[in-house]
Formats: sequence, structure tokens, C-alpha cells
Amino acid sequence: MAGAAPSEEALRRALAERQAAVDAQAEAVRSLKASGAKVGVDAAVEALKALKIEAGAAARRLQAAVGSGGGAAREEMRQAVGNTLERKLFYIPSFKIYRGVAGLYDYGPPGCAVKSNVLAFWRQHFVLEENMLEVDCPCVTPEVVLKASGHVDKFTDLMVKDEKTGTCYRADHLLKDFCKDKLEKDLTLSPETAAEFKRVLAVLDDLSREELGAKIKEYGIVAPDTKNPLSAPYPFNLMFQTSIGPTGLSVGYMRPETAQGIFVNFKDLYYYNGQKLPFAAAQIGQAFRNEISPRQGLLRVREFTLAEIEHFVDPEDKSHPKFVDVADLEFLMFPRELQLSGEPAKLTKLAEAVSKGTVNNETLGYFIGRVYLFLTRLGIDKSRLRFRQHLPNEMAHYAADCWDAEIECSYGWTECVGIADRSAYDLKAHSEKSGVPLVAHEKFSKPREVENLLSCPQRKT
Amino acid sequence: MAGAAPSEEALRRALAERQAAVDAQAEAVRSLKASGAKVGVDAAVEALKALKIEAGAAARRLQAAVGSGGGAAREEMRQAVGNTLERKLFYIPSFKIYRGVAGLYDYGPPGCAVKSNVLAFWRQHFVLEENMLEVDCPCVTPEVVLKASGHVDKFTDLMVKDEKTGTCYRADHLLKDFCKDKLEKDLTLSPETAAEFKRVLAVLDDLSREELGAKIKEYGIVAPDTKNPLSAPYPFNLMFQTSIGPTGLSVGYMRPETAQGIFVNFKDLYYYNGQKLPFAAAQIGQAFRNEISPRQGLLRVREFTLAEIEHFVDPEDKSHPKFVDVADLEFLMFPRELQLSGEPAKLTKLAEAVSKGTVNNETLGYFIGRVYLFLTRLGIDKSRLRFRQHLPNEMAHYAADCWDAEIECSYGWTECVGIADRSAYDLKAHSEKSGVPLVAHEKFSKPREVENLLSCPQRKT
Repeated sequence: MAGAAPSEEALRRALAERQAAVDAQAEAVRSLKASGAKVGVDAAVEALKALKIEAGAAARRLQAAVGSGGGAAREEMRQAVGNTLERKLFYIPSFKIYRGVAGLYDYGPPGCAVKSNVLAFWRQHFVLEENMLEVDCPCVTPEVVLKASGHVDKFTDLMVKDEKTGTCYRADHLLKDFCKDKLEKDLTLSPETAAEFKRVLAVLDDLSREELGAKIKEYGIVAPDTKNPLSAPYPFNLMFQTSIGPTGLSVGYMRPETAQGIFVNFKDLYYYNGQKLPFAAAQIGQAFRNEISPRQGLLRVREFTLAEIEHFVDPEDKSHPKFVDVADLEFLMFPRELQLSGEPAKLTKLAEAVSKGTVNNETLGYFIGRVYLFLTRLGIDKSRLRFRQHLPNEMAHYAADCWDAEIECSYGWTECVGIADRSAYDLKAHSEKSGVPLVAHEKFSKPREVENLLSCPQRKT
Repeated sequence: MAGAAPSEEALRRALAERQAAVDAQAEAVRSLKASGAKVGVDAAVEALKALKIEAGAAARRLQAAVGSGGGAAREEMRQAVGNTLERKLFYIPSFKIYRGVAGLYDYGPPGCAVKSNVLAFWRQHFVLEENMLEVDCPCVTPEVVLKASGHVDKFTDLMVKDEKTGTCYRADHLLKDFCKDKLEKDLTLSPETAAEFKRVLAVLDDLSREELGAKIKEYGIVAPDTKNPLSAPYPFNLMFQTSIGPTGLSVGYMRPETAQGIFVNFKDLYYYNGQKLPFAAAQIGQAFRNEISPRQGLLRVREFTLAEIEHFVDPEDKSHPKFVDVADLEFLMFPRELQLSGEPAKLTKLAEAVSKGTVNNETLGYFIGRVYLFLTRLGIDKSRLRFRQHLPNEMAHYAADCWDAEIECSYGWTECVGIADRSAYDLKAHSEKSGVPLVAHEKFSKPREVENLLSCPQRKT
């Protein structure tokens, strides 16, 4: 997987050169014939044929490299696997007898067994092994909580509408499909245009609303089903809305993540932990996201089981006593710089990533290491697993830094775990909104005397 | 607990007699005094005093029997236990820092441990021991499914509104509170009125909308907080509504039970089971009910984890091969007849309940027995566990017969498990609505030849 990009560019350039040679030779043959010359025509035609064969070979090499042929085989394989899993009831499109609902799936008996084993292993690996505090909060959440957390205002995807039929699409998906399709199927793309499409794909998640709209316009992208023109992108909130209680006046949402249930309990959990930092709380439960146009099977669904950990740490001391246990792990890391410069992910030792500051601190590094161990112990192929850092605009509204564990599957590199440094974003937001201070106090190992104009010397506890 | 009713009636009658004697003697004393007589007044006053002491004692005996004093102690005990459980984070009112939402609770670390142990035991006792097919379906459910199942039209509670403030109350709760309060605190109730209130409490769940409204009017019940008049009862649907997808046109609900996910998958599960009956499917997951006025702590909440089994059986042969394993179990049963005649639940052998037809068939009986074993193995006190049959109007819209496992707790006898014979209600409803036949075929042990005008003799498979 490493090094594919430069070779593809060379192939595009080679194809373009061969094609130019074919065009030049064809022109020469036409000139010869037009001049009425007898001598040399046959040789020129033979040379043209040879050049065409070379160009054809170059096209096939490019084709193979950009994976359109491989893509078809992969698509076929995926469908075969999907069909088998469905037939064996690993999963079933939900409400199938009513023609289903996009993005909702049931697990049948073997799927349930897999799911419950994975969750049991997760609980063992994270919660029990690290003495985390487990909580279990409701999915129905009052508006005030998700207003404070920022989800009411910011948990959105950009949507475009078919201007005639009103059908909705995710703006970034349309742009992505357009670029990928061009790259895979249009062999006449100049290396420059190909590079531009690749750059767009690399920064796709980082594009602003305006940039996305401009690209869609620039490329003349239309509604895939009808070829109708599209509206400009606008934000659509992904939370399922409902109302709580019989009056209909109290707005609620189905939680889009399980973390908020942990944050609002911070004070109680902190006391439960003997008022000591660091500690971690964990929750396993359903999360709901009203995706605009769910696709990719089980990968992007409207309801799923989330297993989340919030680790609370002193912001001035993010060292981790057990970091040494994972420091020597070496795996594929894909920091921001490599992504922006178009280089591939590279094998990196975790200790080095932290000491160089690629990964901001030991605690973040420790959890990256633990997630690596979890996934590989679960059976994920190490060569198809990488940790990719989010680009600045790509991060969720709450994150200060974020690394995704990505697994390479038939859909390409796919986020499976997100490891974000949320700083104190959520605790601050809930403190302000609720008026309840969600803070921890540090007890100095030795009492410190502090001169204070208004009171006696005091011990900070 | 058995036999409390007659003794209470005797006490009421005794108190009424003593009170009448007091009144008569007081009248005699007044007459004597008015007549100016000197002789006998002192003796008459002494007799009155003695009668008053007797009446006071009778009142105290009645008070103790109706449990108002005991009720206060029980209430105190419950609050003490509740406070301890909350302090130890077994459970926490959800979103507490925002003053919570009625009917939503979190489990903290020890509560999560209890919950996951109970669920693991449930899975072991029912799913694994009986080779049930487990499924895991989404909570978000499209309207068509719950329209077919009857929930959109019938999953309602009767609500009354404070006519001035608009505050909503459950109609049956107000009537129940009124009757219980009178019975516990009003010692001057005639035995006849007391009996009437008791009858109302016994058939409370069986009252129609009109009957409930008439009783509320008859008793002059007003809004508990404001003493304002109340509206007539009207049905309020208990499902949380939402909309699926970005257009806002597709109505959905949060499932009020997990069973529908099983029913809509009947065909696939039946094939998975080798096209054989009987088989059972099970599901553990969240269920959502937008209760009008949740109360009683964790007992009536707006979101909870439900563990459900649907056992599919030949309607013409509801025998169960393993019924013998539970036939000798003996426990408290409370069939319809006993409830309506005011008699208490009585110890009954399961074999006898089935052979007499109190419990309709072996399969229903088998599951009652298995639930009894589950609950007692979990540690429930046998003397505080009974199986109560639903009264005809009380049953859910889908049920042909229904027995609740009730546990006596500080709130009184409380439903913990419902065991309903839903007949083929749901499968029929979904077959009709979806056009997909959800049926099972019987394979005769010997082929039977059938004369048929339109085709050759055929084997029914």
C-alpha cells in the first residue's frame, strides 16, 4: 500500500507520453500519405501500430494501478461475503419485510454472538484491566445537555438537495465519488488534474461549507440519480429529535454519543474515586445518528452500539505511569504532515511518536497503544491497521487533537476507533450551563503557605 | 399477607360499633344533665370515658391494620435504602446537574455490575439453556411496523389535565391514590365504602375510559397540586416519536418493546431453525415509554432494558416436552377468579393449574415455571412472589392470556415479568401489512393424500 501514489503518477505520465507519441506518429502517417510518397509508408504504419500497442499496455498498467479492475473484483468479493453473512443471519437489513430502512440493521443469532463476545472482550481489556468506572445512562437526552455540549448547534453534516425532486445527499460524498470515479475510470486525466483530485480526496473532511460548494460547482457535479442541479450545501443536524413527557413542550434527542452521560456525572464519579485524578469512566450503549444517506453496509448506520471511555487527567501533567508498557509498540502512524504532503503512513515506535511530539502526550499515547493491542488481539491484520491524525478542520467541535484507528477494508481505510483529546471542553460547557462546578482539586503533597491579603494562610485542598 | 381483608373489615365494624356506643352514651349524659338529675351523672360520665377508651383502642387497632402507621415506617425505610443506593452510585437520577428528567436514571459502577450480572444470568438461564435464537434490532422503528402491531393506535394510557395549568396526570394513578389514601387515613369510612374502594383498587387496570372518568367525577377528585378541576380522561400515546432521514417526511418511533424486531424477522428465523416449530427467539435491548407521570423510582421509567422471548408454537399443539421438569413447582398463583372475589393468592402446584385450565396450556405453564426458577435463583423471596393473571380489560391489545410475575416490595405487589399468550396476533398483523406471509408449515410424519380438483394429489410440506 505504501508508495502507490508516485508510481501511479509515473504511469499517468508514461501513458500521456505514449499517447502523444501515437498522435505524432499518426500525424506523420497522414502527412506521408497526403504527400503521395510510396517509400516509408508501410514502415511508418508499422511504427504506429507498435506505438499503439505500447500505449495500450501503458493504459492497462495504469488501469491496474488505479484499481478500477481491482475495484470491480473487490466489489464482487464484498457482495459475495455480504450475501453469505446475510444468508447466515449474521446481519439482516432491519424491517426487511417492509423493504427496510436505510442504515438500520439487525444482528441475527451468530451476529449477536460475535457482538457479545467483542463487547465482553472490550470490557475485559479496558474496563476491568484498568479499574474504570462503568456507567449506563439513558439514550433519551434533554435538549439542555446537548445544547451545552455543542451538539445542537454543531453536530451537523453538509447536505445538498436535488433542486427538482428534493432528494438529499451528503455534499462530501458526492465530491468524493466524483473524484474517485474520475481517478479510477478516466485514463486521459492529466497527471496535474489527477493530482488535484487526489489532493481534494486527502483534505475532503477538512473542507469548509463554502469550499465544498465551490468544488461541486467547479466540477459541475449534479444529482447522481436524476442529473438535476444541486442546491448549495447547508448543515443538517444528525440527531434524532423527540419530545419528553406528555405536554410536548420539552425537546429531547436520542444521544449521538455515550460520552455526555459520563461528563454530567463527573462530580459524583470524582467523589466515588476518592477525589483523585486521573480516573477513567466507561460506557457501552446505543448511539443514534440520523445520517443523510447511509451506505457502506454496517459501516455507516443510523443506530449502533458505542463503547466509550473518558479518561480524566490533570491538564498540567498528562504523563501516564503505564506508558512504558506500550512504549515499544511499533505500528503504522499517519500524522497530519504526511497526509498533507501526500506521503504514506509509516511504521513508527510509539515512544518516538510521543517524544517527538507527533502524539501530544503520554496519556494520549497510552490509549493509542491500548487500542492497538485491543484491535490486534481481536484479530485485525497489523498491516491493515493505521493510526491517522485528524486534520485541523476535520476534528469534531470538541476535540483538541484526535487520532483515528483506521482499518483497511474493501471500502478503503475506515475509521473504527476515535481517540480524542477533548481537553476540558465538555466539563467547562456543562459547568457553565448547569451552574454546577465540574472541577477537580489537587492536594499538594506538602502544604504550601500562601500570603493572602484577605484571609489567614491556607492550605489549598 | 393472606387473610388481611376480613380482619380489617371486622375492625372497621368494631370501631363503628364502639363509636356508636360512645355517641349514645354521650347523648345519655347530655339528657341526664339537662334533666337536672344529680344521681347517676357521675357513673354515666365514667361509662362514657370507658367507652371512649375502648373506641380509641379500636381505632388504633384499625390504624395498625390498614397500615398507615406501617406505611410511614415503610416509606422511611425505602427512603433510607434509596439514599444509600444513590450515595453509593448504584443509580443516579439522570442529568442531575440539570435537575434531572423524571423517569430517567443512570446506573453507576456498582449498578452496572448488578445489571450486567443479571443480564448474563438471564442469557444463561433462558437463551443458552434452551437454544434460543438471539437477535439484536434497532430501537428506531419506522411507523409502518408499529402501525401494524397496533402500537400507534392502542399503546396509550389515559391522561387527565389540570384544567387551569395544563399539568398532566395518569387518570388511574389519581383514582388509585385517592382510594388508598381514604382507606389508610380515613378511619370513619363505613365498611361498605371501604369495600367499594377496595373493589375499585382491585379492578383499577380493568376500568374503561368512561368508567375511570365517572369515578373521578363521583369521588370529586381534583388536581393534587393545585386542587383545580380535571379534564375527562383521554388517551395519550406512550411512544417517543421522531423522524427518520433528512427529509422529515418519514415518521419513526423509539420501540416500546423489543418483541416487534423478532416478529418481523419470523420468516428468516424460521428458516434458520430448519423450518421447524416450536422455536424461541430472544432479544435484550432498550425500550422506551414516554410515561405521563413517572414515579416509584426505578419501577416506572421512560427508558429501560428489556429482555424478551417470543416462543413460536403450533397453535393446535401447545404441549411442551419439558413441562414435566417444572410440573411439581408450587408457588403463589392469583388467577382472575380469586382477584374478582376478593380472595388472596394461593399456593398452587403448576401441574394442577395447567390440568384444571387455570393456566391455559403446558407451554404457557412451562414459561411460568422457568420464570419462577429464574427469579428465585436470583434471590427473590418465594413468599413475596406471585403469578397474577390479567383481568380481561387489563390485557395489552395483543394478548389472549397474560400472567404477571409480581414481587411484593415497598410499593406493594409489582409486575416484574409479563408472560403473555399473544396468539398469532403479531404475525398475522405483519403478514397483512407487509404482504409477506409469516407462516409455518407442518410436515406430516406420513404423507397424506388429498383429493384436489385443480392439481394432482400433493404432499403438504
